[in-house]
Amino acid sequence: MPDTLKLIHIIKYSKKMADYIEPKVLKGFRDFLPQAETVRRGLVEKIEASFRSFGFVPIDTPALEYAEILLGKGGGETEKQIYRFKDNGERDIALRFDLTVPFARFTAMHSAELTFPFKRYHIGKVWRGENTQRGRYREFMQCDFDIIGSESPATDFEIILLIHSAMKNLGVDVTIHVNHRGLFNRFLSNIGQSEKSVEVLRAVDKLGKVGEGETLKTLTSLAGETNAKKIIEFISAKGGFSQTLDRLTELSGGVCPESERLADLCRYMTEAVGSNGNADPFLINPSITRGLDYYTGVVFETFLNDLPDIGSVCSGGRYDNLAGLYSKDKNSVSGIGASIGLDRLIAALESLDKLPSADNCRTAIACVEIEKSGQYQRLAGRLRQEGIPCEVFTDPCGEKQLVKQFVLAEKKGLRYVIIPGKNPPSDPVTLRDISARQNKELTIEELIWVLKR
Amino acid sequence: MPDTLKLIHIIKYSKKMADYIEPKVLKGFRDFLPQAETVRRGLVEKIEASFRSFGFVPIDTPALEYAEILLGKGGGETEKQIYRFKDNGERDIALRFDLTVPFARFTAMHSAELTFPFKRYHIGKVWRGENTQRGRYREFMQCDFDIIGSESPATDFEIILLIHSAMKNLGVDVTIHVNHRGLFNRFLSNIGQSEKSVEVLRAVDKLGKVGEGETLKTLTSLAGETNAKKIIEFISAKGGFSQTLDRLTELSGGVCPESERLADLCRYMTEAVGSNGNADPFLINPSITRGLDYYTGVVFETFLNDLPDIGSVCSGGRYDNLAGLYSKDKNSVSGIGASIGLDRLIAALESLDKLPSADNCRTAIACVEIEKSGQYQRLAGRLRQEGIPCEVFTDPCGEKQLVKQFVLAEKKGLRYVIIPGKNPPSDPVTLRDISARQNKELTIEELIWVLKR
Repeated sequence: MPDTLKLIHIIKYSKKMADYIEPKVLKGFRDFLPQAETVRRGLVEKIEASFRSFGFVPIDTPALEYAEILLGKGGGETEKQIYRFKDNGERDIALRFDLTVPFARFTAMHSAELTFPFKRYHIGKVWRGENTQRGRYREFMQCDFDIIGSESPATDFEIILLIHSAMKNLGVDVTIHVNHRGLFNRFLSNIGQSEKSVEVLRAVDKLGKVGEGETLKTLTSLAGETNAKKIIEFISAKGGFSQTLDRLTELSGGVCPESERLADLCRYMTEAVGSNGNADPFLINPSITRGLDYYTGVVFETFLNDLPDIGSVCSGGRYDNLAGLYSKDKNSVSGIGASIGLDRLIAALESLDKLPSADNCRTAIACVEIEKSGQYQRLAGRLRQEGIPCEVFTDPCGEKQLVKQFVLAEKKGLRYVIIPGKNPPSDPVTLRDISARQNKELTIEELIWVLKR
Repeated sequence: MPDTLKLIHIIKYSKKMADYIEPKVLKGFRDFLPQAETVRRGLVEKIEASFRSFGFVPIDTPALEYAEILLGKGGGETEKQIYRFKDNGERDIALRFDLTVPFARFTAMHSAELTFPFKRYHIGKVWRGENTQRGRYREFMQCDFDIIGSESPATDFEIILLIHSAMKNLGVDVTIHVNHRGLFNRFLSNIGQSEKSVEVLRAVDKLGKVGEGETLKTLTSLAGETNAKKIIEFISAKGGFSQTLDRLTELSGGVCPESERLADLCRYMTEAVGSNGNADPFLINPSITRGLDYYTGVVFETFLNDLPDIGSVCSGGRYDNLAGLYSKDKNSVSGIGASIGLDRLIAALESLDKLPSADNCRTAIACVEIEKSGQYQRLAGRLRQEGIPCEVFTDPCGEKQLVKQFVLAEKKGLRYVIIPGKNPPSDPVTLRDISARQNKELTIEELIWVLKR
């Protein structure tokens, strides 16, 4: 619609109180107030910087897609939670519920324009009509990064290294739990249980929720007591990376491509970031399976060393044939990808008091005389040139009411108020430290020096 | 839905070719490939930096809102273009079509948590089912910034100064065309035509589209020939800011609060950014009205000096009672706001060859032997520490096939490929300049020095 109609109805309908509309947001949706939004943007910026430093590039896709694209020809579980509707042209459309399916469609459509291996990241909102009682949101931001078009073990390694590096750049230490779906299948085959792999994987996936006792019961009914105990032994293997890998390899019937893949990963990681005995930044956790049908190779979850109970903050794995549904081309596009759980990560960083401090404005210039607004902004411009953010207050207080501007600054969480001299921007100023309640006379050069610290 | 179900259907349905789904995006929607998305993110980052340097803070609101909130109790033109539907709980919901209406709802809901004057910016996607034949998109990004809760002339000035400053930071010179809605009304009253102000404004608003002849005809039928000529004279006034203002003030019956407001603005702007005669960065353009019902004070449009014909890249104005529709409170929240047309700005910067060059990765490390992947990443880590983005190639080429990696680098638009020595990261390297097709032997310190330039 034309700009001119933007807010007509607000003016029009607000005249009569009878037309008052209660302001509210939909359940499961959130407003982000300045502080929360500053934190979110700051965090995303830092994570993006890590992606870029590894040569990953951003893409974006539409929020709305044809429902057929998002749902395939099936639907099932997904269909119940998707925001799906008919547009004015009677097209069957829906809001994206993740960034992976649009990426598959994107890859099939644009493969001729992309260079493989393709390393991309995608940060954007997705929508799911989930049950909000479990503390889930219906609108949230996803942060995915993938390398597609290569089966090299160096890509598995790079994704895991990038997680480690991105978290380090956020000031937190993590332990990345790695597993290989193929190794588990080989083990099942070795104990003659490969035809039950789906059921077994499902039972193992629930281990964390239902406990070892319950899992053993389920497994016994599936595979008999001896095999059930072997499965529990397999998924409970612990210790350093190499030690665990040796044990798993033995249980799986000896060295195989999957155990070699994990051994490569271990060697690369150790060479790249080192290892310090008990506090390895990565380990093998054979109980991690990451779901049943999708991943085909290495899978992983990431835990904060200081807050492991909050759950994995970054998970993913290797998959085959990303774009298969949308591509007539027989060449499959395999890859490895990960997704950072931003909401969970923010909650964790907050409780660890490690939220990145945003490069916020800390300083305002007091508006003493409105007539000098132009000069105040020149003074502010001088500071901004030096990289110092600076607000200019806009409602005049007069020389005797400066305290009003101090109160405003305090409410806004600012640290300093500059009271300009008679002739801004050249005259010396008074700098008010709001929390210390102290004033200092400073030349402009001194002011810049103080504010740059 | 659980992560485990993420892509099940892709795997499931891609097995049979009969289930192939044609990959396509909805009309009016766009994929952003890495280059376009890098440009867009880079531009947004630069604009955000300007906002922050003025002490503006970010907010975000949900993409979906109750339809009643977005449409008021009316609808009309807006209703035809909005994406509106029933969710699974039979709620009547819709996608936001701009950022202003959600901001009004936000302000009414959170006024107790905000500090006024409140200076915020909001960058996000909006959706309109518009006719795409006019080259409009159905999904696009808006970039709004407002100061609300103050009627000070210093706020009008600050918004206009911020536009000027943000555009300067993007490397382009602009001319901001300013007008005052109240001054025009006063002029109409002075010629006895105030009761026809809506019709007259509508006719004037079309001046650019239909030309002066047609406008004169319409105005004559509305207000008689003499008055029509006076109106044309008023809206055609040209020259320097003060000169034009003097003429308009005279035609409106002499000095009044509205003419004083514009005079203040002129003085502040001149003090803050200077003025150089014919190339003023701002001027009065009395034909700018910015629609009929919404704005109540100063209005403005922004034109690029090197590409004025592309139209205004940033427009807005002063309004009363933003949150009135959603607030029982009798205190109105007035303010001034502006919106940057990102798509248009990107198109303009592109044709002026002034798109900000993204801080992209220019360098890759060749993967000669896969076994050294860990060491290659250590070398890359050394560069990243110095602020140099660096990709590591993941598919080994062997020493005799390095050309394959050069070709890959060229395809990706990289400038350099590093061929590591025998023992990375400490050994000297060979640096390949892709476009110059030259190799150089360098120590790690020399490498850092070259790549930092």
